[in-house]
Amino acid sequence: MTVEQATARRLDGSAAAAEIRERIRPRIEAFTRRAGRAPKLGILLAGSDPGSEIYVRNKMKSSAELGMESDLRRLPETAALGDALEIVAEFNASATHDGILVQSPLPDGMGSDAEQQVFDAIAPGKDVDGFNPANVGRLVQKRPALAPCTPSGIIDLLDREGVEISGARAVVIGRSDIVGKPMAMLLLHRNATVTICHSRTRDLPGVAAEADILVAAIGRAAFVTREFVKPGATVVDVGMNRLDDRAQVEALFGAGSRKLAAFDRRGSVVTGDVHPAVAQVAGALTPVPGGVGPLTIAMLLANTVSAAEGRQALA
Amino acid sequence: MTVEQATARRLDGSAAAAEIRERIRPRIEAFTRRAGRAPKLGILLAGSDPGSEIYVRNKMKSSAELGMESDLRRLPETAALGDALEIVAEFNASATHDGILVQSPLPDGMGSDAEQQVFDAIAPGKDVDGFNPANVGRLVQKRPALAPCTPSGIIDLLDREGVEISGARAVVIGRSDIVGKPMAMLLLHRNATVTICHSRTRDLPGVAAEADILVAAIGRAAFVTREFVKPGATVVDVGMNRLDDRAQVEALFGAGSRKLAAFDRRGSVVTGDVHPAVAQVAGALTPVPGGVGPLTIAMLLANTVSAAEGRQALA
Repeated sequence: MTVEQATARRLDGSAAAAEIRERIRPRIEAFTRRAGRAPKLGILLAGSDPGSEIYVRNKMKSSAELGMESDLRRLPETAALGDALEIVAEFNASATHDGILVQSPLPDGMGSDAEQQVFDAIAPGKDVDGFNPANVGRLVQKRPALAPCTPSGIIDLLDREGVEISGARAVVIGRSDIVGKPMAMLLLHRNATVTICHSRTRDLPGVAAEADILVAAIGRAAFVTREFVKPGATVVDVGMNRLDDRAQVEALFGAGSRKLAAFDRRGSVVTGDVHPAVAQVAGALTPVPGGVGPLTIAMLLANTVSAAEGRQALA
Repeated sequence: MTVEQATARRLDGSAAAAEIRERIRPRIEAFTRRAGRAPKLGILLAGSDPGSEIYVRNKMKSSAELGMESDLRRLPETAALGDALEIVAEFNASATHDGILVQSPLPDGMGSDAEQQVFDAIAPGKDVDGFNPANVGRLVQKRPALAPCTPSGIIDLLDREGVEISGARAVVIGRSDIVGKPMAMLLLHRNATVTICHSRTRDLPGVAAEADILVAAIGRAAFVTREFVKPGATVVDVGMNRLDDRAQVEALFGAGSRKLAAFDRRGSVVTGDVHPAVAQVAGALTPVPGGVGPLTIAMLLANTVSAAEGRQALA
């Protein structure tokens, strides 16, 4: 049984992301004409997490492709929280930095609540990740707000793919501030009947199987198995889990699978929270990679443009 | 079939509210000793809604009984939004107003988004209703915040009555900013598996009947009938609906019921969103009146004390 036997329709996040980029391109051009400069994203990267390096590089590359600027500030692993807050304050005060992105995770040495303090410090109007409490509150209240990128990208994907949200039963597994909770709110605003599940949920497979739309944002490879999925359901896989155990990859994807071949070339593969066999039950499914990931970056760019436009409207 | 045949345990909101008041009494005394003055709640009442008059009077009376002060400012029905914002600004700037309450509804003439503008203007540290976006966001993020009074009172009631929240399936019917959404968040933070339902939910009775804890916050008299309720479930009735049709009261509560007798004395009765026959199915049930209502006022007083203490800690 390999993933190649899938029957679920593949929800193409890369194509949806490309459409989002094409939608914002004329907005970037119009902003640039009016303002005499391109929208600019200020990025703070502290420490030397290899994943963070890749994420930041991708974000900067995507920005540049659309004619947006980015301004990367680096801090060493040993930097203090105050150093990060100083850079945020500078971005806040700047007339030409429209959005601010602080790449997670911050170095451990900054303290356990460093991210919260830094996100709180970001001016809500420049908070392109939507993590500031004022933006979280506005999102809950269904008011215009910079919304977290991954959940808003997922809504965009579902719309593009013609998945009916209104009236659907949606189940979100995971209750993070970055994905689970804002995802639940956005689905609710679109008139889904929303259930939020988590590690303390009893009979998680049974609850998940009530879903017409199932969003998995847990961070555990292949956790969502066939029994979690109502036949025909739309399954959105937010997980990005690196596997570096060949036996695990073979057990999950099969001896002749493309994932195993990729593993043998690269020594690791990335897989989602959804077990490959779900493709035989679900009606539609996002791949990993190529599903939610590209959408997240596209929505970050969209949020940066929105922030720039919002600041211009106030100027 | 009358409500007198109920088998559900009655969840006594009045008793729970009395306990909350006794818990905050020593905190008020300690604050008053330290500050040389009592905690004070600034109240803005605009227009002449008869219900609002009663609510405000009850809140002031309850404050006074605990040794707290309140400062009522009135505006006429014809007042402008700017007048309301001016009073809020004065309360915000005051060194002796610890909490600010703006009674809803504001007069229609202030515009359709007047309440939002006024709630946004309230300093988050004095926002005892918990309606400011910054407080909403902090609540979602599970951080210390002034939380909306009705949902936090309900959590207190469930705890007092020994209702297990962790692991329970909770269904909230209604998605208002004041009750439904914060209720869902508070239940989630206590590790319930939470579903939010609303007017667009398909098979609402069926979804509701999955609940171990069912919270009805719809605003429609007797809407939640027996078929909505799993036998033994805990049902919390947030509705406060005035009935002034004798035939409807008789149909709902029966010819010999106390509600009908009350109607015949007073010309109207208040009833909840939950049909009286639910008392024969539910394991536990809040009455209306005497359930959630008293809790809301008690939590308002608790929030005012918390706000006063928070400001004192910063002074």
